[in-house]
Amino acid sequence: MKLAIYGYGNLGRGVEAAIGKNPDMELFGIFTRRDPASVHSETGANVFSAGEIFRFKDEIDAVILCGGSATDLPELTPMLAKDFNVIDSFDTHANIPRHFDAVDAAAKAGGKLSLISCGWDPGMFSLNRLYANAILPDGKDYTFWGRGVSQGHSDAIRRIPGVVDARQYTVPIEGVLDAVRSGRQPELTARQKHLRECYVVAAPGADKEAIERAIKTMPNYFADYDTTVTFISEEEMKKNHSALPHGGFVIRTGTSGLHDEHTHRIEYSLTLDSNPEFTAGVLTAFARAIGRMADRGETGCRTVFDIAPADLSPLSREEQRRTML
Amino acid sequence: MKLAIYGYGNLGRGVEAAIGKNPDMELFGIFTRRDPASVHSETGANVFSAGEIFRFKDEIDAVILCGGSATDLPELTPMLAKDFNVIDSFDTHANIPRHFDAVDAAAKAGGKLSLISCGWDPGMFSLNRLYANAILPDGKDYTFWGRGVSQGHSDAIRRIPGVVDARQYTVPIEGVLDAVRSGRQPELTARQKHLRECYVVAAPGADKEAIERAIKTMPNYFADYDTTVTFISEEEMKKNHSALPHGGFVIRTGTSGLHDEHTHRIEYSLTLDSNPEFTAGVLTAFARAIGRMADRGETGCRTVFDIAPADLSPLSREEQRRTML
Repeated sequence: MKLAIYGYGNLGRGVEAAIGKNPDMELFGIFTRRDPASVHSETGANVFSAGEIFRFKDEIDAVILCGGSATDLPELTPMLAKDFNVIDSFDTHANIPRHFDAVDAAAKAGGKLSLISCGWDPGMFSLNRLYANAILPDGKDYTFWGRGVSQGHSDAIRRIPGVVDARQYTVPIEGVLDAVRSGRQPELTARQKHLRECYVVAAPGADKEAIERAIKTMPNYFADYDTTVTFISEEEMKKNHSALPHGGFVIRTGTSGLHDEHTHRIEYSLTLDSNPEFTAGVLTAFARAIGRMADRGETGCRTVFDIAPADLSPLSREEQRRTML
Repeated sequence: MKLAIYGYGNLGRGVEAAIGKNPDMELFGIFTRRDPASVHSETGANVFSAGEIFRFKDEIDAVILCGGSATDLPELTPMLAKDFNVIDSFDTHANIPRHFDAVDAAAKAGGKLSLISCGWDPGMFSLNRLYANAILPDGKDYTFWGRGVSQGHSDAIRRIPGVVDARQYTVPIEGVLDAVRSGRQPELTARQKHLRECYVVAAPGADKEAIERAIKTMPNYFADYDTTVTFISEEEMKKNHSALPHGGFVIRTGTSGLHDEHTHRIEYSLTLDSNPEFTAGVLTAFARAIGRMADRGETGCRTVFDIAPADLSPLSREEQRRTML
């Protein structure tokens, strides 16, 4: 199938590499809002200006949108969903219902199929929450993120006056993970689940105490957490903090038996060297499914919950049953 | 929905308890090949003779088959699949293709829907193998079982002359798990992955050395593994080995990036106090999906790969997106 990449940052580059790992996929081209001449693709892919995409309506099987959830995707996905099968990784959990409705209307109007909120959370973590809840209805689940770089929190620190660069690691608290695994089903506050480790490059002469205070008291982002702030040099930032690792855990414990006499634990965990490249792997697998489902005539918007796993695999259903079941 | 249980051993009892955890399900009755008058249900469910089930064709939404894979299910599932929506936990991996074809033909002939090989392996472990392979096509996956009781291996020991009772624990080798988690993708033999711990009650005067030799040299079951044999009393067996814990791990590691520069790990693990009761939880969740899909007019045989996760949850799709995505 022929895939297009719309937006060419870390995630777009990850999708480009992921397509190369799937022999049944081909990269039609990269669409960028920058000047295409200024964009270099290491694989030698065609680079087009974003607005040109509508010329290729009949040549592209699906478009993977690689923009940000804050401002890009709420506009882009509905805009493209009428003319293309599209897949996005919209991750603002609270706004998913509204985004879904907008994309669903556009896709239905154009007779196309869309998938939103695909990645690892939302995405694979969501799937594991759903499966585990269905299997163990009498239980409690917990999602932990990290250890890994939160781009949103890093950006929030960068907006503080006097900050040149910043990296924020979300760190699950190990002892609490053990308590969750025990099956005791503790009630946990945000502070009890995660630490926030911040590495900050301050401008020369900046008031470091004021920066540290501004971080630690920032509502939503840091005020509800134990937060550490470490000032480092630009060199150290580049040397030790330029990777984008991430990961986390979805754990559900629950009971069974007529008298709740047995306890079970289901745990799913990811340990990722590169958050955007792994997300790209999820996006391409689900793009395969969306292509197949669109070929069967399906239209409208879907989420990972609606996709039969068989449609993700390059193998035929017979091969899947023979080799993976 | 109204569910029937066909076969009333450990698994059937587990399904009975699992139905009680799902307010949208009701137990229509238990069908047994024993004398129904001799079968006691702790929940007070109706108990019928197996042959009576065809009288209730129009009253049962789905039948959960709780027989064994060796001889029961290859006959039972195709026999019932023509008149009922059926779910089984057929787990002889090598014979799945043949079983699928037989059940598919029967279900299509009767206009009914079936699901085979549902549980945790095959079942949830299979799903995790498939998802992980689709996301990380360039990688390697490993399945470890245990620590837990293998009923098949326990039965094999019980068939040795002089053995009164036996329990076999399959134990994953911890150091090897660490090597797998590292991403180095080792090639592993059966012996390197699992130990087999056997607890045996010998008849008075039995030749224990001969029993131990018979176990350790048994082809397929033990000869390819490091096996320990410990003789214990009947009292100790009853006191310390009457539970049926199990579990295991599905781990896939793989690389991404244009130059394979990043490694990722996906790990799914189960820690189960009761193998049959957890399997029952999986069966009831998938019975919900089969009921819904049958209502939409689907017929034939399915596996867990064919089921959209959304159909497993008692929540509406809107609620799923709002609360779990």
